[in-house]
Amino acid sequence: MAKKKPTQKRQSQRHLKTGKSPGTVTYFGNRVGVRSIVNIMEYDKQDIKESAIDVYTPSNLQKMVAYKESPSISWINVIGISDEGFIENLGQAFALNPLSTEDAVNTHQRPKVDEYENYIFGSFKMLYINADNELVTEHLAIVLMENTVLVLQEMKEDVFNSVRERARASTGRIRAKKADYLFFALLDAIIDNYFLVLEYVNHKIDVLEEEVYDDPSNKTAHDIQELKKEILRIRRNIYPVKELISKLIDTEHHLISKDTKLFLRDTMDHCTEINESLNILREMSMSLMEMYMSNMSNKMNEVMKVLTIMASIFIPLTFIVGVYGMNFENIPELQYQNGYFYVWGLMIAIFIGLLFYFKRKKWI
Amino acid sequence: MAKKKPTQKRQSQRHLKTGKSPGTVTYFGNRVGVRSIVNIMEYDKQDIKESAIDVYTPSNLQKMVAYKESPSISWINVIGISDEGFIENLGQAFALNPLSTEDAVNTHQRPKVDEYENYIFGSFKMLYINADNELVTEHLAIVLMENTVLVLQEMKEDVFNSVRERARASTGRIRAKKADYLFFALLDAIIDNYFLVLEYVNHKIDVLEEEVYDDPSNKTAHDIQELKKEILRIRRNIYPVKELISKLIDTEHHLISKDTKLFLRDTMDHCTEINESLNILREMSMSLMEMYMSNMSNKMNEVMKVLTIMASIFIPLTFIVGVYGMNFENIPELQYQNGYFYVWGLMIAIFIGLLFYFKRKKWI
Amino acid sequence: MAKKKPTQKRQSQRHLKTGKSPGTVTYFGNRVGVRSIVNIMEYDKQDIKESAIDVYTPSNLQKMVAYKESPSISWINVIGISDEGFIENLGQAFALNPLSTEDAVNTHQRPKVDEYENYIFGSFKMLYINADNELVTEHLAIVLMENTVLVLQEMKEDVFNSVRERARASTGRIRAKKADYLFFALLDAIIDNYFLVLEYVNHKIDVLEEEVYDDPSNKTAHDIQELKKEILRIRRNIYPVKELISKLIDTEHHLISKDTKLFLRDTMDHCTEINESLNILREMSMSLMEMYMSNMSNKMNEVMKVLTIMASIFIPLTFIVGVYGMNFENIPELQYQNGYFYVWGLMIAIFIGLLFYFKRKKWI
Amino acid sequence: MAKKKPTQKRQSQRHLKTGKSPGTVTYFGNRVGVRSIVNIMEYDKQDIKESAIDVYTPSNLQKMVAYKESPSISWINVIGISDEGFIENLGQAFALNPLSTEDAVNTHQRPKVDEYENYIFGSFKMLYINADNELVTEHLAIVLMENTVLVLQEMKEDVFNSVRERARASTGRIRAKKADYLFFALLDAIIDNYFLVLEYVNHKIDVLEEEVYDDPSNKTAHDIQELKKEILRIRRNIYPVKELISKLIDTEHHLISKDTKLFLRDTMDHCTEINESLNILREMSMSLMEMYMSNMSNKMNEVMKVLTIMASIFIPLTFIVGVYGMNFENIPELQYQNGYFYVWGLMIAIFIGLLFYFKRKKWI
Amino acid sequence: MAKKKPTQKRQSQRHLKTGKSPGTVTYFGNRVGVRSIVNIMEYDKQDIKESAIDVYTPSNLQKMVAYKESPSISWINVIGISDEGFIENLGQAFALNPLSTEDAVNTHQRPKVDEYENYIFGSFKMLYINADNELVTEHLAIVLMENTVLVLQEMKEDVFNSVRERARASTGRIRAKKADYLFFALLDAIIDNYFLVLEYVNHKIDVLEEEVYDDPSNKTAHDIQELKKEILRIRRNIYPVKELISKLIDTEHHLISKDTKLFLRDTMDHCTEINESLNILREMSMSLMEMYMSNMSNKMNEVMKVLTIMASIFIPLTFIVGVYGMNFENIPELQYQNGYFYVWGLMIAIFIGLLFYFKRKKWI
Repeated sequence: MAKKKPTQKRQSQRHLKTGKSPGTVTYFGNRVGVRSIVNIMEYDKQDIKESAIDVYTPSNLQKMVAYKESPSISWINVIGISDEGFIENLGQAFALNPLSTEDAVNTHQRPKVDEYENYIFGSFKMLYINADNELVTEHLAIVLMENTVLVLQEMKEDVFNSVRERARASTGRIRAKKADYLFFALLDAIIDNYFLVLEYVNHKIDVLEEEVYDDPSNKTAHDIQELKKEILRIRRNIYPVKELISKLIDTEHHLISKDTKLFLRDTMDHCTEINESLNILREMSMSLMEMYMSNMSNKMNEVMKVLTIMASIFIPLTFIVGVYGMNFENIPELQYQNGYFYVWGLMIAIFIGLLFYFKRKKWI
Repeated sequence: MAKKKPTQKRQSQRHLKTGKSPGTVTYFGNRVGVRSIVNIMEYDKQDIKESAIDVYTPSNLQKMVAYKESPSISWINVIGISDEGFIENLGQAFALNPLSTEDAVNTHQRPKVDEYENYIFGSFKMLYINADNELVTEHLAIVLMENTVLVLQEMKEDVFNSVRERARASTGRIRAKKADYLFFALLDAIIDNYFLVLEYVNHKIDVLEEEVYDDPSNKTAHDIQELKKEILRIRRNIYPVKELISKLIDTEHHLISKDTKLFLRDTMDHCTEINESLNILREMSMSLMEMYMSNMSNKMNEVMKVLTIMASIFIPLTFIVGVYGMNFENIPELQYQNGYFYVWGLMIAIFIGLLFYFKRKKWI
Repeated sequence: MAKKKPTQKRQSQRHLKTGKSPGTVTYFGNRVGVRSIVNIMEYDKQDIKESAIDVYTPSNLQKMVAYKESPSISWINVIGISDEGFIENLGQAFALNPLSTEDAVNTHQRPKVDEYENYIFGSFKMLYINADNELVTEHLAIVLMENTVLVLQEMKEDVFNSVRERARASTGRIRAKKADYLFFALLDAIIDNYFLVLEYVNHKIDVLEEEVYDDPSNKTAHDIQELKKEILRIRRNIYPVKELISKLIDTEHHLISKDTKLFLRDTMDHCTEINESLNILREMSMSLMEMYMSNMSNKMNEVMKVLTIMASIFIPLTFIVGVYGMNFENIPELQYQNGYFYVWGLMIAIFIGLLFYFKRKKWI
Repeated sequence: MAKKKPTQKRQSQRHLKTGKSPGTVTYFGNRVGVRSIVNIMEYDKQDIKESAIDVYTPSNLQKMVAYKESPSISWINVIGISDEGFIENLGQAFALNPLSTEDAVNTHQRPKVDEYENYIFGSFKMLYINADNELVTEHLAIVLMENTVLVLQEMKEDVFNSVRERARASTGRIRAKKADYLFFALLDAIIDNYFLVLEYVNHKIDVLEEEVYDDPSNKTAHDIQELKKEILRIRRNIYPVKELISKLIDTEHHLISKDTKLFLRDTMDHCTEINESLNILREMSMSLMEMYMSNMSNKMNEVMKVLTIMASIFIPLTFIVGVYGMNFENIPELQYQNGYFYVWGLMIAIFIGLLFYFKRKKWI
Repeated sequence: MAKKKPTQKRQSQRHLKTGKSPGTVTYFGNRVGVRSIVNIMEYDKQDIKESAIDVYTPSNLQKMVAYKESPSISWINVIGISDEGFIENLGQAFALNPLSTEDAVNTHQRPKVDEYENYIFGSFKMLYINADNELVTEHLAIVLMENTVLVLQEMKEDVFNSVRERARASTGRIRAKKADYLFFALLDAIIDNYFLVLEYVNHKIDVLEEEVYDDPSNKTAHDIQELKKEILRIRRNIYPVKELISKLIDTEHHLISKDTKLFLRDTMDHCTEINESLNILREMSMSLMEMYMSNMSNKMNEVMKVLTIMASIFIPLTFIVGVYGMNFENIPELQYQNGYFYVWGLMIAIFIGLLFYFKRKKWI
């Protein structure tokens, strides 16, 4: 699976778009190799039917639009959005505003919700931890139409398996509700995964914290800074969502029922919790750096103490032995029978005295 | 009693919920061993009756609901919320919205107040210092209904003993008032305990401050950072309460009387004071770290001074004795009768001179 | 006079109140020994009459209430609020809401203004510098009633002497105005003293600043942190006042005339200035710590330079004399007639060379 | 091409204006040598005509105004705004308010949009990376009138080539729309270039980050500070744009159609993204400095360790050899046949012991 | 001319006012020696007449008021406001509210605008750089009345010379307009000078920045802190002005015409720019301190490197020569013919080896 470093890639392909007319469909992402597939799930209270459409067969686009017309609920899931031509046709077939189609594939787009007369367009980021325990950021567009939810995502992996399971179970609430409940369920699944992302970041902080205490190195400081940047990027993708949900709650658009708004209110509570957690994680990451600096300072202190103790003890002693190494003809002490031992006594006394001195200073 | 480290546990069980349908009752807490008990206090101006119900006897649920119907005020206190099946039944029996039942046991839920047609649902955190002098965070749900207050809490320990005492005293104001006053009294008791939590944190800061001055170690820095995190967690549980109380004051819900709102206004003043104190505690904890760093710096200075003084005095003296340890055939001074003593004189002069120099620099 | 350290005392007595019913009159302060005295000043345009009432004589309470009824303006000044029973009776006699009576003696209460039908209740903190040049924080309640202002304060000392003088002078504006002007005049006196408190803090900053430059010690850092905490405490007591004055200006309460509001507007300008100054003082106190750290760093640099210079000069020289202290049988230089003097020449050259080197580095 | 350091130049020429009457046309910029040229592009759905006018030929001003009168769309592009007299005449010819004319050449003007009855005046900064890979800030005024867009810019270089291309292509949307779409297209081109500026800054941060890790010097710190200042300057020019676009969306001015507002909404999303990125870049630049300081600290630690290890090992050994360099007549060890070798053994043991000690401390 | 250090003086004279009745005219400034002078400029479209009035001649006050009555525009300029009695009379003569008169001489007053029925009162601070290149802060009150602008300023120096020049020129816009335009012109002149003050601060920052890089000393840190305080003080005097101008634009007071508001809007743009610049200057001053600390750290590193290199090279060598200075009877090497030279060889090898080691570490 393709790995990515969102910010760098992101910034460096921006120029592809500069100068183009607004509404031009341009894919900036790095999941270019992904071939577009369309999975369709059509259901009502009684039945559910799942199928896939080969988008490279002409006339299939018309089949897709047919689903939109039928009275049962259709979840049309487009996987792979790098084929700009196909996406453009798709947008026209579903009568989307060109600006919506543009945003659907614009992986740089920050989360947004736009209301149009016949549909509600939402663009979000799925953040999840993949099988390799890496954080994946995947661009996603959800279009809520009458009886139909159109989802466009970059890759096969997504966070919607639980929604699919619940839809397949004939007793699930999804089956009894309209398209707006499906729309909500998808949003809810996306936001539920944000909690796991926060856990992932929290775990990283725990690991770094241990590293700071046990064996801080220059790399540790580097990792802390990288973590801070990662939190900034996550924040950028997650933070605006709360406001968008709130916008959906306040909307008077005919496609969102009062009943669904009650569920959305619950989702907004989750967003509030997530945003608070993000702020706490940010403060914790900043404390990490502070802690690192204080640890460095401690280490320096320890190094200095060793040096000072060694030097303070042996430099005076070396001076004393130097005195009796002088070659003066007349140094009375040198003739003493036990002069050598007296000097040793003196030196041991100094040694012990200094040890006591450092002990009292709590240096040893 | 079970001890807990809220954040870690909390985050690491979040995944239990991911992918479940909204409204699913899931308990994340770590008071799993606690068997559900229901204590009931039924009172009016004249009488008070206390009883306990064994929730594992069938049909008892109907008895509980009966209390709700009676015109006297009932305080139904559910202790232990880890039995998800029982809680779900309870919610249905009292006709609670599934989202409320879910929040009642969702220990991750941040404080909230939701108004429904027939009841007001509040979810809070009791924070208190237990017998072992530890800070306990306990999830709590309070449901205000007509003539009934339903309380769901995780453990037997709570902060409501004073409310119980006041209810038992026939002269207490509680006995003369409606359920909304009981609701207020419980909130007031919760918030009163927040003051004690602030005292507890304040005491911790005092202890750490002393440690910083007297004997700062790497552990001190660690403890300061832990304290900062603890304040963040406390803040998260306490900070939103003010806004919720304000919401209760502004509500037009029929269950809350104008009279009770006057008391709630008083409670909101307390919340304002608490939130201000929290901010001050936070600033104090940040100052602690600053102080710690400045102390480290001071200690380093002291260590360096000792080293510099020792080295600066004895290195030149050692040089001098080295000079007269040279084996040149012709060193005139060596033949002087008192050469040895002259050298001592010189060295003592240098010694005193350097002492004066360091004295003037205020290093000794 | 009793000295106090507000925060600690304050926090540690909070538990006295926990669990009590709201409206319970509880005094937390530490001016417990103060016996309640009541001074009364009754005046109109023509006359002024001052008297004192012994509150421990029964029936005197009725006399006090009588003042309230009379058409002339009465300033009833209660000194000493630790006698909870008396205060409770007083509150009932003047028909105050129990919550107001509670706040009147609650020294923890942050500044507040509550409007009731028949009176306006204000609780403030007098901050002033006493004769011993210490900052005193004194809790104060002012109740504005029809023709009467009731003041409750902790101690005999207060900031109202200038108001008394102006009231005694028959030409003063106070005499010609209603009770609301007296209410304003008292507020104005309190706020005027805040300026002196700011001066006091400013002076402390100046003193510490000098200390930081001249002779910074660990105690200096400690004092700076204490100052920062003191500013936080002052801020807590002063900051909310502006908003309260603004509330009084916007009120439609019949007890406050349009004319008085004009004066209150002037007072609010002072509050704005005070709050701005508080912010500036806070920034200055934070700069102090920064300056302290930079000074520590400078001192360390100086210490290191001395060490480095001494060691760098004498260690090489000691090596040289060590060379000629070796006992090899064949060291040609030792036989040179002037070898000793050549070595001295070499060492002096090295000495001068190193001095130049350090000079060029601007270390000496 | 002239290079510039905006802030310094800017501030130091401000005095040119002090004391002048408002509405006085004064150019502060440093593109003084640039001769004014006027390029005109006149188009409708069918045709497009491009021409240039020599502004130093009298009566040509009248020709320019004629374009304004014609029903086809005219884009009048004035290059070079240092000729204050010409600009003043131009302003009068197009019936601009003197304050607008003043702002058109006031390179100090922060971005603004002013609505007048017959035109909308916008002043922006073009920021782009020129051929020499330098960041250029160019002052720009855009005036939207009926059927005409008047653009005044400092230099020949601009960011509008893509707009020109799209206008020349007969199929472009621009050709089918009114002047307000051209106005939008120009704004869009300016804002699109802001993304490239962010990339440029991002790249600078990457380079500095590498420098901080690999080989930080005093210059690195200097460059980080310069970068921080550059971000401040960029921010100043870019940040207000979002609010201006929002103002254009909310306006009821007859010159801006509802259709164009839809496009402007898209542009505002870009502005939001840009402002968020600016904030992130700012935080990253601040982290850089933090990282730099932590690296310095690490380096110091490393230096101190080397010193401590060398000194701690050799100072005790030197003491030992000093002992046996004493000239006492009676030092028993000196007579031992293998005394010399025993001492070597002792010293090697001490040497190895200390190595182990430092190893255990993870210093080596 | 009197120099001043605003804050200190300011704070220390505040007590002069404490306890005085509101509306009492008290001058706190330190331009006490300045004798009050009144200059009058009376003009209409055709004529202009300038005169001075000796305010110490009785009855002249009536003459001044006469100007107010005449239909031509009068600019009454009072220089010197320390004569409290005169100012009080003046206030009464012009029917000013006592609170206005108080504010007119209250040099502590932060900038304000008050609207009364017959006049608009504004109090500002003139900040300008005087002939000695010092920043002067001068208190100023401007009263806009029907056909008259009354200006009260502390000293002869002011920032209005350009306004005077423009008024004298018969073609100036001022001559053709009402008093409100003069009022605006004065405000505009004050605010224009703020730009020069910003330049002055900017220059100070440049100078300090150079000092930080070239030769930072303890004094540099001190100067940076002083600069930070100076910016705080400037900010305090300048920052509120924007809001006041905005208040003047929104007012419905009959004395300010719609036409003048257009000019005021332009002035408000300048205020926005000034406030932004102030924020940038503040951030720059904070960066200075950061830079200073990083430079200190660098210097320390350099000092430590020299010490470490010297000690690490010569301490081992000294040990070696110490070895051969021992007096053991049996040290085989001492008898070698070339032992001495071998040792030199060894020592040179060690010397070179260590040099390489330090070279590789990039310490030399």
